[in-house]
Amino acid sequence: MGLGAPLFYDDPIQLVRGEGVWLYDADGRRYLDLYNNVPSVGHANPRVVEAIAGQAATLNVHSRYLHEGVVSYVERLVGLHHDGLESAVLACSGTEAVEVALMIARGATGNRGVICTDATYHGNSAQVARLTALPVGTRRTGVRSISTPQRYRPIEPGLTEAELCERHLAQLEQTIAALEADGERFAGMIICSILANEGLPTAPAGWFERAAEIVHDAGGLVIADEVQAGFARSGSWWGYETSGFRPDIVCMGKPMGNGMPLSGVVASHELVSGFRHRHRYFNTFAASPMQAAAGMAVIDEISDRELVVHVAGVGQRLRTRLEELQADHPEMGDIRGHGLFIGIDWVRPGTTEPDVAGAADVVEGLKRRGVLIGKAGQHRNVVKIRPPLVFDEEHAELFLSAFAETVAGARI
Amino acid sequence: MGLGAPLFYDDPIQLVRGEGVWLYDADGRRYLDLYNNVPSVGHANPRVVEAIAGQAATLNVHSRYLHEGVVSYVERLVGLHHDGLESAVLACSGTEAVEVALMIARGATGNRGVICTDATYHGNSAQVARLTALPVGTRRTGVRSISTPQRYRPIEPGLTEAELCERHLAQLEQTIAALEADGERFAGMIICSILANEGLPTAPAGWFERAAEIVHDAGGLVIADEVQAGFARSGSWWGYETSGFRPDIVCMGKPMGNGMPLSGVVASHELVSGFRHRHRYFNTFAASPMQAAAGMAVIDEISDRELVVHVAGVGQRLRTRLEELQADHPEMGDIRGHGLFIGIDWVRPGTTEPDVAGAADVVEGLKRRGVLIGKAGQHRNVVKIRPPLVFDEEHAELFLSAFAETVAGARI
Repeated sequence: MGLGAPLFYDDPIQLVRGEGVWLYDADGRRYLDLYNNVPSVGHANPRVVEAIAGQAATLNVHSRYLHEGVVSYVERLVGLHHDGLESAVLACSGTEAVEVALMIARGATGNRGVICTDATYHGNSAQVARLTALPVGTRRTGVRSISTPQRYRPIEPGLTEAELCERHLAQLEQTIAALEADGERFAGMIICSILANEGLPTAPAGWFERAAEIVHDAGGLVIADEVQAGFARSGSWWGYETSGFRPDIVCMGKPMGNGMPLSGVVASHELVSGFRHRHRYFNTFAASPMQAAAGMAVIDEISDRELVVHVAGVGQRLRTRLEELQADHPEMGDIRGHGLFIGIDWVRPGTTEPDVAGAADVVEGLKRRGVLIGKAGQHRNVVKIRPPLVFDEEHAELFLSAFAETVAGARI
Repeated sequence: MGLGAPLFYDDPIQLVRGEGVWLYDADGRRYLDLYNNVPSVGHANPRVVEAIAGQAATLNVHSRYLHEGVVSYVERLVGLHHDGLESAVLACSGTEAVEVALMIARGATGNRGVICTDATYHGNSAQVARLTALPVGTRRTGVRSISTPQRYRPIEPGLTEAELCERHLAQLEQTIAALEADGERFAGMIICSILANEGLPTAPAGWFERAAEIVHDAGGLVIADEVQAGFARSGSWWGYETSGFRPDIVCMGKPMGNGMPLSGVVASHELVSGFRHRHRYFNTFAASPMQAAAGMAVIDEISDRELVVHVAGVGQRLRTRLEELQADHPEMGDIRGHGLFIGIDWVRPGTTEPDVAGAADVVEGLKRRGVLIGKAGQHRNVVKIRPPLVFDEEHAELFLSAFAETVAGARI
């Protein structure tokens, strides 16, 4: 697979089996999974496995034939969104969903200029990678960035939260104007609804809603990247509900098929039909009966097991317990996030200076204690807690115990 | 799914079940499938179904953990290619494979200019779609096209095959020079090894091998698009073997997982490692245990059932029988292709003028007789015969009977 293929841990884990929130390595060691957001209804979820196996044994073809399961799935999927989002395009990866969303926004507006944050990641294709690691003020064809809206490391010190919000909104307006001044007319803004890759910073209250208004007033479309935020992760069905805005276009991926490659975009019937006519988009493996079966089983699991409520409850209690630990651990600079997606901004005590090595020590220390977590954020110093959604109180206790030990150990 | 989502047939087929080379619609009607190249080892192939179901029930995670099945699959896959192709990058769709291949070629050469044919299609992302429908001489950033090499409608009349080959090779050299003159330094050429979307034209003998030499002499890399050509379709494992050239980079997709979204790129260890270091490419759903299980089952089926030899034999006999029919049907202008991928260039009798309506009538007429085929080519007049690889002599007889009736009917 070539030298330099990305791997976790200095001594990578060789996995052989998974079940619920548990992963097992080749030596029979068990790990509590607080990292993986793709198998969100649990590793090897029996309902999803049965759906995939049953459909694969029956029929799996492309979408230029009709299939009832595909249509039913699309109807169910759009029904989970607000009324303005009526139609869907299915694809195979989050990257492909963002490709489609950009085509929809650019095609509908006739413009090319897209705004993103300066610390985002939306995918790995040439077009989508243009949105990666784009410092504010940098000219890159068709894209410009804004500072990630955040309270913990404010772009200007000494402001109230309301003033900070205004400051970020003014920057958005200026960036739209700058795009237009450069001859790149404004098509819209793409943003992760919970700022996941940015490190889950808490945006100033009202920022998302008012930013969406500004985008609309300038004739642009709002694209919510729900690849990480969606499907109950945030304690709502969608991250945009948690963050309080109404997108025009929504990209979905990761947990959508619990591991079956499946992604999609929802938007208005008008936007999707316009896209269909302009692009004649066809995706060989997408909108297949097997994708639909997996996707439907995931929605059924989230609904029947009431995972939205579950996630909100377990997530809140986990966060409270972490905040209790924070009192004795000033290196836990900021605890934030939504539902079962919690970030801890690891800092040098008494400062907001990112402690990348400290965060890495926590990740490695937890691995030694049989717990898998990750790191995220602009500075790679945010300890990322993001278990499968079926993570419950008992698992939270196991994690908190290992975490407390790790943090204590990291100090001695 | 929006108005304008692509569908086959004026009255589309609603499918409910598939088995081997057979598809069944909601009214219980059975169709002989001579269209689908994704379920190449047969619809609902039991070995592939069992592999997918078994792996989904055991473990399916991303590739930043180690997994023996993934490594075994990659080793098996590269072992099917020539010695210079040692390493692989897995992805989810053909488009994603071509994205990776372009990144490898451009990164390794440090140049951007890529040459393709003027009648190709390599995928649906913004970057890859730049290769679609590009007339010769058109300047499009980073890409230029050459005329599709072909004997049936030669770019210049009255030449011998050898002269025609020289004419196409000279055009390739001129196009490389024109790219450089425009300040777009040459990175390489991407070409479908059997010119599938071009309508399977027969290239002048020796063109592929000598074109690859010209690309190499100019410092470029040769990318073979085997998304349609690969995995025994052409009667060899790879289309590049059938066409007689050695690519530096190979893109694979469609039949690779028999319907499981799975694609990949193979190249030298050096090229892949360089790509890994430059791009830190990560693809959430790719190189997963479930992809590997499906992919391995496909290779096992092709190997154990000796489908390479089977395809070459059945394909050759089918082609001979079609050539016999051609004697009485001058609208069958040119019969060509490789293995179980046969194209019939439908023309106005006595001319080489494309008969698009005639080809469409054949497709619809065969549907009424319970047979599914398609159309392809630059002029959309090439009747495309491309059944699952498990298509055998008995199926060929059924098809030939329906085809003869349809062609006779189309004349009255």
